[in-house]
Amino acid sequence: MISEINSANNPKVKHIIKLASSSSYRKENREFFLEGLRLCFDAAKSKMKISAVYFTKKAFEKNSENINELVFVSEAAYLISDGVCEKISETKNSQGVFCVCKMLCEKDENDIDSKLKYVALDNVQNPDNLGAISRTAEALGINGLIISGGCDIYNPKAQRASMGSLFRLPVIKTEKLPSLLMSLGSRGMKIYSTTPDSNSKSVVEADFSGGVVAVIGNEANGVSEEVFAVCQKITIPMEGRAESLNAAMAAAITMWEMMRK
Amino acid sequence: MISEINSANNPKVKHIIKLASSSSYRKENREFFLEGLRLCFDAAKSKMKISAVYFTKKAFEKNSENINELVFVSEAAYLISDGVCEKISETKNSQGVFCVCKMLCEKDENDIDSKLKYVALDNVQNPDNLGAISRTAEALGINGLIISGGCDIYNPKAQRASMGSLFRLPVIKTEKLPSLLMSLGSRGMKIYSTTPDSNSKSVVEADFSGGVVAVIGNEANGVSEEVFAVCQKITIPMEGRAESLNAAMAAAITMWEMMRK
Repeated sequence: MISEINSANNPKVKHIIKLASSSSYRKENREFFLEGLRLCFDAAKSKMKISAVYFTKKAFEKNSENINELVFVSEAAYLISDGVCEKISETKNSQGVFCVCKMLCEKDENDIDSKLKYVALDNVQNPDNLGAISRTAEALGINGLIISGGCDIYNPKAQRASMGSLFRLPVIKTEKLPSLLMSLGSRGMKIYSTTPDSNSKSVVEADFSGGVVAVIGNEANGVSEEVFAVCQKITIPMEGRAESLNAAMAAAITMWEMMRK
Repeated sequence: MISEINSANNPKVKHIIKLASSSSYRKENREFFLEGLRLCFDAAKSKMKISAVYFTKKAFEKNSENINELVFVSEAAYLISDGVCEKISETKNSQGVFCVCKMLCEKDENDIDSKLKYVALDNVQNPDNLGAISRTAEALGINGLIISGGCDIYNPKAQRASMGSLFRLPVIKTEKLPSLLMSLGSRGMKIYSTTPDSNSKSVVEADFSGGVVAVIGNEANGVSEEVFAVCQKITIPMEGRAESLNAAMAAAITMWEMMRK
């Protein structure tokens, strides 16, 4: 059964807005919010559990088949007014399709295969960077992300920029990155971290055979000291005047070198 | 002398808003609009001609020294109210510093050195992509950009994302990319274009010695047929499920390979 929501004061609307804006509220409720037909559909295809799907009349008229599939796999479905759509949308020209998903089970250190390639994000803050890095990681065949602090993977902007790759890539969350890296190093993995310091070894000379973790630092402050202490430093040689590549670009080039054949 | 502007109906405010939003109005007036202290300052350092600088009282109190330098090199200077600032700003937490610059002299084919490395953008539409590509190009030491259609380099979002690199990199605008590329090819340059087609030659196997142009295509449609016809196709091998890298990431990896030592 499809219920209707026409008021922005409906408790479900308030729930959505809080899910979209608050990381701690997401954590408490173990749910997150997605916008856009493609992304909602990717969530369903990736076997995410969908608590509810929300759509406007216009969206349904345009994409009835796809929306029907979403309704079929969701625990609940709501037809929302254009006013409610505008209230919950974070984009300028909303497609009018949204869903609330249940968070995934968290993975931990034991899910890391020490023969494979991982990227660790040390306090990467910008959701667009997190999304772009995960999209590029998946495209290049990186086996998983390790996330320490910074933007959480359920941030709606990060989800949009990731084009669904955050559903598909294994993501390991840690609050103790330095000790996790030490432990992975003792399991035989090579642990690198990127730095703008041009005296460090070039990424071109690094040995990326076997199991590898490459750490990408925070946009403003780079990789933290405690993390540097347990890594080999590598750098992307630059010729130009731009002070540094942005975090997503540096990550793309590092991952490319890790996977380059 | 510093004049005050307190009304959003002031003709200068209307001029700015049109400069920020309309590519054709920028062309007509041969001026463009920048937001942010750092970017305005980069424009001044790069010897751009600044028609006017605009700033709020709060911004001046915080950065009087830098703003005084901007005032010194500008033809005119205006103290604006917070209301005017909000009206013209395109960011959420504006720094309250803006300027209007005169467009650069346009460069043409004769400014291209056939021994050097260039990236050509074939109808790249997204200003963030244009900005990110130019920033990465400068960082990696690419010698210039060739722009055909798509987002213009004076778009305020592209300027912000470029972190000033669009002032510093030589930019050649063309309306006839295929014939320009043919002509550069006959001058001995290698002309490549990127494609997601995995049957094409890998970017790793391409010969990037000597003069090179690498063409990056439009976000949705890739490189146009007429351009492909005059290029060698190269591709970035992918393992993962993500349908393709986004344009800025594909450009970053291609430029990296061009400059890789």
